[in-house]
Amino acid sequence: MALESGVQQSPAFHCQQFLRVPITSWTQNFSFPGLSKGFLRKSSILSISMSPSFQFGIIREKKGIFHVMSPDVASPGLAVELLDAWDDEYNGVIIDTQCLPSSPNAFASALGASLSNWKLKGKRGIWLKILSEQADFVPIAIQEGFEFHHAEPGYVMLTYWIPNEPCLLPSGPSHQIGIAGFVINDRKEILVVKEKCPCSCSGVWKLPTGYINKYEDIFSGAVREVKEETGVDTIFLEMVAFRHAHRVAFEKSDLLFVCMLKPLSSEILIDEQEIQDAKWMPIGELIGQPFYQDDHMSRKMIEICTSAYENCYHGFTAQQLISKLDGRLTQLYYKDNKPKI
Amino acid sequence: MALESGVQQSPAFHCQQFLRVPITSWTQNFSFPGLSKGFLRKSSILSISMSPSFQFGIIREKKGIFHVMSPDVASPGLAVELLDAWDDEYNGVIIDTQCLPSSPNAFASALGASLSNWKLKGKRGIWLKILSEQADFVPIAIQEGFEFHHAEPGYVMLTYWIPNEPCLLPSGPSHQIGIAGFVINDRKEILVVKEKCPCSCSGVWKLPTGYINKYEDIFSGAVREVKEETGVDTIFLEMVAFRHAHRVAFEKSDLLFVCMLKPLSSEILIDEQEIQDAKWMPIGELIGQPFYQDDHMSRKMIEICTSAYENCYHGFTAQQLISKLDGRLTQLYYKDNKPKI
Repeated sequence: MALESGVQQSPAFHCQQFLRVPITSWTQNFSFPGLSKGFLRKSSILSISMSPSFQFGIIREKKGIFHVMSPDVASPGLAVELLDAWDDEYNGVIIDTQCLPSSPNAFASALGASLSNWKLKGKRGIWLKILSEQADFVPIAIQEGFEFHHAEPGYVMLTYWIPNEPCLLPSGPSHQIGIAGFVINDRKEILVVKEKCPCSCSGVWKLPTGYINKYEDIFSGAVREVKEETGVDTIFLEMVAFRHAHRVAFEKSDLLFVCMLKPLSSEILIDEQEIQDAKWMPIGELIGQPFYQDDHMSRKMIEICTSAYENCYHGFTAQQLISKLDGRLTQLYYKDNKPKI
Repeated sequence: MALESGVQQSPAFHCQQFLRVPITSWTQNFSFPGLSKGFLRKSSILSISMSPSFQFGIIREKKGIFHVMSPDVASPGLAVELLDAWDDEYNGVIIDTQCLPSSPNAFASALGASLSNWKLKGKRGIWLKILSEQADFVPIAIQEGFEFHHAEPGYVMLTYWIPNEPCLLPSGPSHQIGIAGFVINDRKEILVVKEKCPCSCSGVWKLPTGYINKYEDIFSGAVREVKEETGVDTIFLEMVAFRHAHRVAFEKSDLLFVCMLKPLSSEILIDEQEIQDAKWMPIGELIGQPFYQDDHMSRKMIEICTSAYENCYHGFTAQQLISKLDGRLTQLYYKDNKPKI
């Protein structure tokens, strides 16, 4: 763009468009209303401002678009406030949560400018993680068009899908993972508990169950839950079956893995906060309870476990293997043909 | 509490404490500074207000606590704004999302008053679901001490644990559930795909994979994904293995179920949005790829699948059973001893 005499002509230009006024690092605007407009029609321009060094300019069009002219968009002379972010491998963007502006107004401004920028660059999915202490930013992001994706104590993740086509972003986690521990001693007695919670299974003797912890392996969770609820030490033998149920807690789904564990001790010490009582019970007495007569699922699970114990059944064992896909150590559960312990 | 002459004595009292001034339905306060204070020390009282009918009173203590005296807390004369909610079976409370106040100020006031009320009543876990259109309420709830629990497009769930002991509320969903479809024809060729995504497996021929949909069964998801990616119709035979990995996507965990499917058709029609190419490939050629030579996990999975096909291996089949515990139809996956198709 040619500039009139008295104003330095920049050798090359980089032009970014914004729908909000960019925040600049210079405090005084120099206005040159008589400047030659170059590629813009004179009538469409509201104002032109140049930085004191004449290196950067902002052209404001009547229709509300701001053109920022600069030799290099990253030059420090012009502090255009965009959110710090990095690209993911799907032509999307992950916003840096640690570098969000501190005030809601600054965040709103930067978020809008950044979205415009990403749209111009043809980016697809935008990921925005907001911490609890930044919760003021949540309604701002929603107002801008972001959607909730997933959350856990400490943060909420939101996403924005730019293309005008069905969203291809992967969904968030949908399942809780639980375990049931089937522990049988050499007197063919099963370790059972009676829970304290006032729920539908109150008063029923059942297998120890629980949810696995974050990042915990299923077989580890089974051994841990049995230990916590009953005090009995065990080792994992195999996974005999699992149950898949939907709309369980708050419309979510869960998988319950039934794990056969070999007891290493017999003394019972219950967790009094959650457990009313625990004991070793003959199989016949367990499934003789009215609850098990009516509940096909629970009865089937005990039958499978008993068959597994009597060596008529082989479930899945766990092997740790590295996946080249992501370089991670993962657990593969499958039926191993090695003899059981 | 005995009231002085000229003021009606209520036969029985219900007293609620609030840390914010309750909203009343009467417009004029009657103050009786000389009233006998009954059980409250005179010096601790700032003011006493009675409703025009003398049925309800608010005593404001110097330390900022408001005592609302009423014969019946639900009486219409005193509009104490509390959130609509119902009890759960664990002595907790579920707030009614459909009946939240419309303005942030009213919500803030009602939330604080309700929390005080629930604390007095000895409630434990409070559940608050906030819809996207109510996002302004999120920072208010966080400010009050709520924590994020889980979220999905459309809402975020927050919780508040009242007791001064470790939180016993169950965690939110933590896992994504995926499937890999192992489809082998009678020429011992495996149905494989090459994905379009620019990720680490780009250029590698692999089994069709994908995530199951909300509330979808694992075996249904396997058949659907294979159909969508390759156009091939199949039926589910058995689940041969599954992989458990942590810190996969945004620090979440996932389970990948490898399902053996029997092809019902052979013609391939790919989903061009996600798949670059698909074909029937001899087993030897599949595992001969350098990727499989390095990736123990993937190679093991193919070996297991091949053994299953050759009848040397039996995985888990699916049976639908009703659980009395919650009355739901659920899927139990286990090794069925019936002969394979």
